[in-house]
Amino acid sequence: MAAWGERLAGVRGVLLDISGVLYDGGEDGGTPIPGSVEAVARLKLSKLKVRFCTNDSQKSRRDLVGLLQRQGFDISEGEVTSPAPATSLILKERGLRPHLLIHDGVRSEFDQIDTSNPNCVVIADAGEGFSYQNMNEAFRVLMDLEKPVLISLGKGRYYKETSGLMLDVGAYMKALEYACGIEAEVVGKPSPEYFQLALKEMGVEAHETQRIGQSPMLRLTEIAPKRPCGGACRQEHLS
Amino acid sequence: MAAWGERLAGVRGVLLDISGVLYDGGEDGGTPIPGSVEAVARLKLSKLKVRFCTNDSQKSRRDLVGLLQRQGFDISEGEVTSPAPATSLILKERGLRPHLLIHDGVRSEFDQIDTSNPNCVVIADAGEGFSYQNMNEAFRVLMDLEKPVLISLGKGRYYKETSGLMLDVGAYMKALEYACGIEAEVVGKPSPEYFQLALKEMGVEAHETQRIGQSPMLRLTEIAPKRPCGGACRQEHLS
Repeated sequence: MAAWGERLAGVRGVLLDISGVLYDGGEDGGTPIPGSVEAVARLKLSKLKVRFCTNDSQKSRRDLVGLLQRQGFDISEGEVTSPAPATSLILKERGLRPHLLIHDGVRSEFDQIDTSNPNCVVIADAGEGFSYQNMNEAFRVLMDLEKPVLISLGKGRYYKETSGLMLDVGAYMKALEYACGIEAEVVGKPSPEYFQLALKEMGVEAHETQRIGQSPMLRLTEIAPKRPCGGACRQEHLS
Repeated sequence: MAAWGERLAGVRGVLLDISGVLYDGGEDGGTPIPGSVEAVARLKLSKLKVRFCTNDSQKSRRDLVGLLQRQGFDISEGEVTSPAPATSLILKERGLRPHLLIHDGVRSEFDQIDTSNPNCVVIADAGEGFSYQNMNEAFRVLMDLEKPVLISLGKGRYYKETSGLMLDVGAYMKALEYACGIEAEVVGKPSPEYFQLALKEMGVEAHETQRIGQSPMLRLTEIAPKRPCGGACRQEHLS
């Protein structure tokens, strides 16, 4: 606690990644990373505001939170910023009716969205849903639009599961970008707008926020000048 | 004949695209483009050397030629330059053992290639073979290599079938390039090496060659300064 106390001086909010920080995903639901359940519990006992920020686009917030709770984490649905609800907001604001190329696990997040006569395509980490037929269908929808709009929930290259590396949505985003000659709009990390949404939901300014991520490249000393939260928020590991 | 005679003055060889010039492909085998059977017959009656140059990577040369012969074209296997046999040559020359992500229709072109313990990945227009599982397998092979080598048979964005537009191998090439952080080697049009191979097989120099393609952007007046055959070969429509 002493080390954390020093590191978090002047910080009001903590933004935590989920995959690779709280747990490693897998077909069996994944496994918590040793020490992370206790670390989250300690943070919750402090006066710090805590928010979880993920790019996971295969699961609804409800399913993700349920999975983490079963692993022992103190986490609730309202504490999670995830790309599917953020995308739903954008679709409503802009009057967009998506053709959805997404995993069934996240479909409930789009229950309130009109998907008739689509005027855009939304892709997420669809996993096995990235069949040739589904990709071709999304491609044809885009090519039929006068101004094709492609929204991608994150742009990850790949992620790690217990079975090995898995292609992420970014690869399929690139495929559609190339085929259609367009550029996708990305909802998710590392987009500054996405971090701003998480900060807004937490009610804390960027310069008062400590981000905790998984990648070695995100260590505090290296990333601080890059203002990854759209402000001066800092980054550190949870370990 | 008069118009052709004038246009082909000084030309010794003619390089013809296949898809979109001889026929439009489709699940039913496609249909010949009106007038193209007769045009090829006229060329064959002239003193010009004729070679067919395709990016089709779903079919073996034997199958492609059989299909065109049934449509009435005067064409033989030895007159066709296609990316699969060209890739086989490259694999043999460089001692590469490929993991193949290709259509079953073209697999026979790789019968003589050692595919054990792969040290590269070869992708072609695999159609329905571009499942998430197959793409992920190719991705993992690449990520396991110290120096990942990805060879793509063409880099087309899409092509047209009677049922509509179809995603081509280029989109999936881009997906793997992005996921692995690499650049693919392309065997097929518009690579200059590929045109040079076709010219070598025809035994005619680039400046003596007339190319006949489908795209409006390849009209003679527009393309001539670009030297698309790796020399001064000219381009024109067959219509």
